[in-house]
Amino acid sequence: MQGNATTGRRRRGKTSARLRERGSPGVAPAYVKREIPFFPFAGEEALVKLEEQADWLMQEVGLEFRDDDEALRIWRAAGADVDGTRVRAPGDMIRALCATAPSEFTQVARNPERSVRIGGGNQVFAPVYGPPFVRDLDNGRRYGAMENFVDLVKLTYALPSLHHGGLVVCEPCDVPVSKRHLDMVYAHMRWSDKPHLGAITEMSRAEDSVAMARILHGEETLEESCAIMGNVNTNSPLLVDKVVTQSIRVYCGANQGIMVVPFILSGAMGPVSTAASIAQALAEAMMCCAFSQLVRPGAPFILGNFLSSMSLKSGAPTFGMPEPVISNFVIGQLARRLGLPLRCGGALTASKVADYQAACESSDSMLSTVLAGAHFVLQAAGWLEGGLCTGYEKLILDADRLGAYQVMLAGMPVDDNAMARDAYAEVEPAGHFLGCAHTMRNYETAFYEASMSDSDNVESWEERGSMDAQMRANERWKQLLESYEAPPIDPAVNEALEDFVARRKRELPDAWY
Amino acid sequence: MQGNATTGRRRRGKTSARLRERGSPGVAPAYVKREIPFFPFAGEEALVKLEEQADWLMQEVGLEFRDDDEALRIWRAAGADVDGTRVRAPGDMIRALCATAPSEFTQVARNPERSVRIGGGNQVFAPVYGPPFVRDLDNGRRYGAMENFVDLVKLTYALPSLHHGGLVVCEPCDVPVSKRHLDMVYAHMRWSDKPHLGAITEMSRAEDSVAMARILHGEETLEESCAIMGNVNTNSPLLVDKVVTQSIRVYCGANQGIMVVPFILSGAMGPVSTAASIAQALAEAMMCCAFSQLVRPGAPFILGNFLSSMSLKSGAPTFGMPEPVISNFVIGQLARRLGLPLRCGGALTASKVADYQAACESSDSMLSTVLAGAHFVLQAAGWLEGGLCTGYEKLILDADRLGAYQVMLAGMPVDDNAMARDAYAEVEPAGHFLGCAHTMRNYETAFYEASMSDSDNVESWEERGSMDAQMRANERWKQLLESYEAPPIDPAVNEALEDFVARRKRELPDAWY
Repeated sequence: MQGNATTGRRRRGKTSARLRERGSPGVAPAYVKREIPFFPFAGEEALVKLEEQADWLMQEVGLEFRDDDEALRIWRAAGADVDGTRVRAPGDMIRALCATAPSEFTQVARNPERSVRIGGGNQVFAPVYGPPFVRDLDNGRRYGAMENFVDLVKLTYALPSLHHGGLVVCEPCDVPVSKRHLDMVYAHMRWSDKPHLGAITEMSRAEDSVAMARILHGEETLEESCAIMGNVNTNSPLLVDKVVTQSIRVYCGANQGIMVVPFILSGAMGPVSTAASIAQALAEAMMCCAFSQLVRPGAPFILGNFLSSMSLKSGAPTFGMPEPVISNFVIGQLARRLGLPLRCGGALTASKVADYQAACESSDSMLSTVLAGAHFVLQAAGWLEGGLCTGYEKLILDADRLGAYQVMLAGMPVDDNAMARDAYAEVEPAGHFLGCAHTMRNYETAFYEASMSDSDNVESWEERGSMDAQMRANERWKQLLESYEAPPIDPAVNEALEDFVARRKRELPDAWY
Repeated sequence: MQGNATTGRRRRGKTSARLRERGSPGVAPAYVKREIPFFPFAGEEALVKLEEQADWLMQEVGLEFRDDDEALRIWRAAGADVDGTRVRAPGDMIRALCATAPSEFTQVARNPERSVRIGGGNQVFAPVYGPPFVRDLDNGRRYGAMENFVDLVKLTYALPSLHHGGLVVCEPCDVPVSKRHLDMVYAHMRWSDKPHLGAITEMSRAEDSVAMARILHGEETLEESCAIMGNVNTNSPLLVDKVVTQSIRVYCGANQGIMVVPFILSGAMGPVSTAASIAQALAEAMMCCAFSQLVRPGAPFILGNFLSSMSLKSGAPTFGMPEPVISNFVIGQLARRLGLPLRCGGALTASKVADYQAACESSDSMLSTVLAGAHFVLQAAGWLEGGLCTGYEKLILDADRLGAYQVMLAGMPVDDNAMARDAYAEVEPAGHFLGCAHTMRNYETAFYEASMSDSDNVESWEERGSMDAQMRANERWKQLLESYEAPPIDPAVNEALEDFVARRKRELPDAWY
């Protein structure tokens, strides 16, 4: 792996040079170290009420754990009240188990400079996860294919404000479902050197993902560190099926990480109340965290939350509305009280295209996610149409804004240089600071330069063809794909990965479900 | 005026009914009462440093007060150190003067139900102010005319989340500059019943505005209440010209309100540092507040702040970037420490059209403005192109998002109904809450319904013509203008206003500067 580290460092040098040319210095660390406070949206009394409600759900109502006898055995052995498939446990017991999960951990990348620290004051951004469709300005909307998947992995690799690859940047619908996970995991390992996730849809697919991580990182690395994680949804309300428990057993069993995410549209999978839906999500995720710690104490666990509202007129899911904005802030507070890393939010929208609606909804969703202190932000770029579609242009545009959030998270210096008293000795009232020594000294690093924003006057903008943001982003993703260079990989490791994928594909039947 | 109040109440009944049809109940109060905490972005030490820097600027560097001998006389009489046109005063003296300004006051509207409370936990949204150009999808970009001005006043009246009319919704460039203020102020008084601002560009124009307010509201109202305000910029850095001091003298002299706004692009009108620019803005606005209190102790004063950054590549002003987002949060903290109402932020962008860039920049700018606790938000809807252009569609789209912010500002209930325990007795794990009693009980008021967001599936959206947000907004403003009904006005009052305007127009020469 040492070879990778060295060449990786060279690559990053080149990337940084490119970034400087684009005028965005300093926004491409492996992850964000937050320097600003958290937003205390809900008061102590409200937070305690939400925790009491979660405890009530866990202890009195209970959660269903279905289709996995081993999960029930584990709960029974731990002393939980198991009644058929209903599992109840006191809040204290669940909290004690949650306490063994690390509040902060590192997911190693094959390029060590891209390893991410998850939890505490750190924030990690990853792209959209799961859409069966893709859309771009040239070809419109169509089913995602492996070709698109590889494009999107390469773009994620090239975009400095995406720290992590996620996994299902789109569904590669031209590959049988039974084999898809192999191509997806391989693509992230081969065409990017950022950390990424593994499959969860079936136990064997999770096992394949961990096996591939062992080939890429080495057996020892996986014994000592988190190199791959799964991201899995509960079946809200209050049902945890085998997809969840088996994913936990595979990933945590191998000392790897798991992220469990109650996906709740208030009014459907939870009560039509933001507070109740938050408490329910908390209960579901806490029970899964406790379960992960019963499987392997100390295994990395990310408390997930994905809450949204719906249209009162049509019942359609809505995104970026004030209710999920509120839930981002509040779940951030609750996760910190539990001491667990948090996944929530993202650049979410119900819009079909990257228009004004999409940007308003995505921005309100994402700025609140960032202010809320979410440690791992899946869906931070590229999401369209309630998660059904990955937008090429939207990926570029969202990623550009992520750079702005990183600058905000760095806080505001107030040292002597920042206070600029010498500038006032040089510049008279009604004068200007454009050429003064303080400006010359600080100009290059003073402001975030959004590469997708056009701030020129209207005449220059019209001369260049009156291109709107989508059109500029369309040019940009093509440039990025054209200038893409694959990160180096040890040929022996690559061959071993290819062999593994080929063997498993031979063993598995073609299945489309 | 009683007649107005009564008919006004009838009108509001109709407006509310329309709102309910659109599915946005409860988002159209006269102003927002904030129920959530403020965001403590900067720590105590940083805030003290900024205040010390402001004191240093006021006491050691001093501000220029030019072209208004009366202003210098007032400062001298108050004991300030006046050296030529340079005025210096200790921070303590300035703070003591600022303390006589009300921390909260009411601006009365001609419809009393639309009077706004400014300061404390209240927030008031007003549209764009100042653009010489207008743009819509049908006619593109052109100079603003009186016809556009009246359209925009009517739209502001019709949009429930705009609480205040502002003044210069666009420059009516077809009316001589010397007479423009009369037509603008009259349009707000006649075509809307929301509160609005008066002119400031010349002392006589400010006087005309106050005179017209006396006609509309009655002499007594103006003696007792704030019925009109001026909004004026300092000439940063550190210059206060007669436009500012004379506006203060006219408005505060008549016991009306004034809002003084240092407009600083960091690196040009302030040092290339967010912290230093904030401190400078604070010093400039505090000196003007102190001056307003020397003119009339207790006169309503709004501490203004308008800070932005610039492109490192071109030097062009940028908007919605992380540096002004930070400044919104910090100036919010500083204004609260001073106990003064604050104007800052808005839905700002450098984009020429209402595209993804415009929405990202506007949203980050506006959500931070709202979280920062800005009491009066001018430029909250319709701003394009760095303030050079008013967008018809953008006005509609921004106003729709303002409704979402109002829901967020109302906070999250955690009462028994919100905790929905009865729903869990009715809904089994893996079931759904769609038809349960709790949902039926709460469905209609549960979520914000964004009227400009399309949350339907892609097939329905395509069937309706694949309209993006701008196209939907284009339809909406036409509908709103078509269904517009003027608020009733006492014919005698209207005639008196028309006579005043006609007389002043006869007295004034046509001038285009």
